[in-house]
Amino acid sequence: MKILVLGAAGMIGKKLVNALLHGGMSETKIDEIHRYDVVMPPSLDVDIPVHAMKGDLSHEGEAERLAALDCDLIFHLASIVSGDAETNFDLGWSSNMRASWALFEAIRSRSAMNGGSRPKVIFSSSIAVFGGPFNGPIDDEFLCAPQSSYGAQKAAIELLLADYCRKGLMDGMSLRLPTICVRPGKANLAASSFFSGIIREPLNGLEAVLPVEDTTRHWFASPESAVGFLLHAAQLDTELLKGRRSLNLPGVSCTVAEQIEALRTVAGNDVVKLIKPQADEQIRKIVGAWPEDFTASRSKALGFQADSNFEAIIRNYIEREL
Amino acid sequence: MKILVLGAAGMIGKKLVNALLHGGMSETKIDEIHRYDVVMPPSLDVDIPVHAMKGDLSHEGEAERLAALDCDLIFHLASIVSGDAETNFDLGWSSNMRASWALFEAIRSRSAMNGGSRPKVIFSSSIAVFGGPFNGPIDDEFLCAPQSSYGAQKAAIELLLADYCRKGLMDGMSLRLPTICVRPGKANLAASSFFSGIIREPLNGLEAVLPVEDTTRHWFASPESAVGFLLHAAQLDTELLKGRRSLNLPGVSCTVAEQIEALRTVAGNDVVKLIKPQADEQIRKIVGAWPEDFTASRSKALGFQADSNFEAIIRNYIEREL
Repeated sequence: MKILVLGAAGMIGKKLVNALLHGGMSETKIDEIHRYDVVMPPSLDVDIPVHAMKGDLSHEGEAERLAALDCDLIFHLASIVSGDAETNFDLGWSSNMRASWALFEAIRSRSAMNGGSRPKVIFSSSIAVFGGPFNGPIDDEFLCAPQSSYGAQKAAIELLLADYCRKGLMDGMSLRLPTICVRPGKANLAASSFFSGIIREPLNGLEAVLPVEDTTRHWFASPESAVGFLLHAAQLDTELLKGRRSLNLPGVSCTVAEQIEALRTVAGNDVVKLIKPQADEQIRKIVGAWPEDFTASRSKALGFQADSNFEAIIRNYIEREL
Repeated sequence: MKILVLGAAGMIGKKLVNALLHGGMSETKIDEIHRYDVVMPPSLDVDIPVHAMKGDLSHEGEAERLAALDCDLIFHLASIVSGDAETNFDLGWSSNMRASWALFEAIRSRSAMNGGSRPKVIFSSSIAVFGGPFNGPIDDEFLCAPQSSYGAQKAAIELLLADYCRKGLMDGMSLRLPTICVRPGKANLAASSFFSGIIREPLNGLEAVLPVEDTTRHWFASPESAVGFLLHAAQLDTELLKGRRSLNLPGVSCTVAEQIEALRTVAGNDVVKLIKPQADEQIRKIVGAWPEDFTASRSKALGFQADSNFEAIIRNYIEREL
């Protein structure tokens, strides 16, 4: 099997490739992995061919170049993040929506040339497709009414993907990933960045800004759970989705106050003191429209597995990254 | 006020223009109406300037040409119909989705040139944004999981429209029109065409094919109700939508058997005998995934009004068209 990872230099992309190289799809013989990102993915010293390519999917000819690799499985993780898409309207719609559309078109053309052999596309969507008001946990039949450009772009790509799949032009599904926490490394432009920052920076002896109230509730998965979702989806028979190709994934629902209490339990009071509340109206507004809790009944029934609680998410970070 | 109607030569477009010319928006002084369609809208002999333009919104430069008219209110009714969009994948995505996107972009550019004065766009979406399975009547928080390209295109345009409006780049809303019945004139390529055909043809002394089982339940509005929805939306303060700019509209839910019984009541047994059952698997499959009933609570609360029952829908047709 030949695998392509778009967004392979990102945090989840790197972990996904690593998992693929270490038995993450144990039933599958992997012959080749192609990694693609706007920055060159790091070189790897491994037994099977793992190629690295630098490029921007939104540029002319890039989608065709990738489709011509004739991969059997494509993880599409490439995205302009939420804060950036909100600030740069054109960039978000072009790099997220138009580029994904170009990819699906290129896959379709290539598939027609290859006698109909269709790759499977696992698209990383987001819970940002949902917007308030919410009445309790979001169930699997709740509407997409995104309150951010990022969410609108993800929802629109989901519609495209589902229609291309329904028409047999490709195979695939969209995974509405919870907010990934704790993200290692540096803060990014996502409006959700602080959810990781308030855990990560204190654990590294640094101060962290908390831009929202501690009553803010949100939906989380560890990076390892996210990789697990992607691998599980890649091995899932999409017929089981019965035409509804977007899935809300399981996660951990907790408030910022509960995040902080979990940090106190794991790392102590002095670490927690490094969290500094400092209201940011723009972030508060974006995050305030985000979902807080899900039933995730379908995905659980399909075998997707979440972290057990937020303490487990913190311990996962410490174990893997510190 | 300057008004632009896209799809003005269509059945609803013509009735809408007629209503606008006869006090349909009584609180509003209409200075000018521009009518646009792929076929030249018919000439009209009226007091105010009513222009007719022939063109295809999906062609280069057309969106800009229309935006440059600087209309205050735009009714966007132009669409490739469902059966056609299902058969011609590229045509549907290009003429429905890409062309609408180009229109929104052109409106945005023009508005920036005009110091931010934004037109209001009333977009005719469809209940085809919904796909089964359904659990009883569809409420206002039910997901869009379209099972046709037409429905996917409408849902994607709704997302775009909502995001452009949320960012203040234009104003507007999407109306998910029920299936319009009884459509006067000839059958079209919409998979829903027979719902009108089985009433219209017999009333005109002609045989009509019924391609689905008579237990098929569906959601209807008369052409006059549809025009009423459009006029009401045009006069509605979009702030009342609280960020959810797509509306399920009120309608009449009934089965084909109930349609037929209403026809028998209104026109007698000999007329009903002209309906000839003749199964069509492709139509049955498309229609079988369509919604059957709605709560339409939000739109009713906002003052949108439906027909009272299917008999009233038939009598409306007879009165207006025969």
